[in-house]
Amino acid sequence: MKKKLLSVCVALTIGAGAGYATTVLAQAKPEVLVKQRQAAMTLQGKYFGPLAAMMQGKAPYDAAVAARNAQFLDALSQMAWDGFNASTKDTTEKNRALPAIWENEAKFKEAQDRFRGAVTKLVASANDEAAFKGAAGEVGKSCGACHDNFRAK
Amino acid sequence: MKKKLLSVCVALTIGAGAGYATTVLAQAKPEVLVKQRQAAMTLQGKYFGPLAAMMQGKAPYDAAVAARNAQFLDALSQMAWDGFNASTKDTTEKNRALPAIWENEAKFKEAQDRFRGAVTKLVASANDEAAFKGAAGEVGKSCGACHDNFRAK
Repeated sequence: MKKKLLSVCVALTIGAGAGYATTVLAQAKPEVLVKQRQAAMTLQGKYFGPLAAMMQGKAPYDAAVAARNAQFLDALSQMAWDGFNASTKDTTEKNRALPAIWENEAKFKEAQDRFRGAVTKLVASANDEAAFKGAAGEVGKSCGACHDNFRAK
Repeated sequence: MKKKLLSVCVALTIGAGAGYATTVLAQAKPEVLVKQRQAAMTLQGKYFGPLAAMMQGKAPYDAAVAARNAQFLDALSQMAWDGFNASTKDTTEKNRALPAIWENEAKFKEAQDRFRGAVTKLVASANDEAAFKGAAGEVGKSCGACHDNFRAK
């Protein structure tokens, strides 16, 4: 009984609106996939922003922030991609994904891999200011390259 | 010149719309903070969902998914809290944060810590089905307890 109650509580308190219950039991709805992938992009922006500022000399290099944000980006950089399911191509949910994503899947995957590789190097170099700045530059370029090709202006 | 160009590109391609440039150089705007904290909640839902289903017996236990999602939650569970800045109390950005968050900061912090602690145990137990299910139950309860007290229905 207690277990059943917990079950219901979890479903009600967390599942409501988040759409995750359907994620598990069936294919998530396109609008949920769009929101989830946009959430990953939003948080990538949140945690790359301070690193870009350090790289650009707009903020002083802070090894602790560099390491923490790189770790967060390591997780976040794995989260958006399954959200670009073909089912989202025609969703009415506002988004900037270009058809090129599904017209050239190999190139899109390559862009993801470049970004993931750059983040991996960022994690490894976060403690060394010069190496970190080089790695952050490559992360920024990989973001931009993917946005140029696969995201509407 | 190349460096300056990169600088500008990064700002234009990633910063545009994400608001992170302001995050670094000044306090992020309330509406940006709200979007970022909601993004963390959305992704927590995405990655806890399959674990809740395993815990409830609605999906078979999968050690690899349990471990990966627990790792993701370990990062995500640190991301929402600085978004609950007092500057967001009166934002017009749609959200469900209750005034209790700022009226009882110690209790809100306690709820965050309970959740973080539960996620840490989840990471440690992901490889053991029984321990994992117990830990996932506590994660679910800690989500629900915080939502009950600090989130509008």
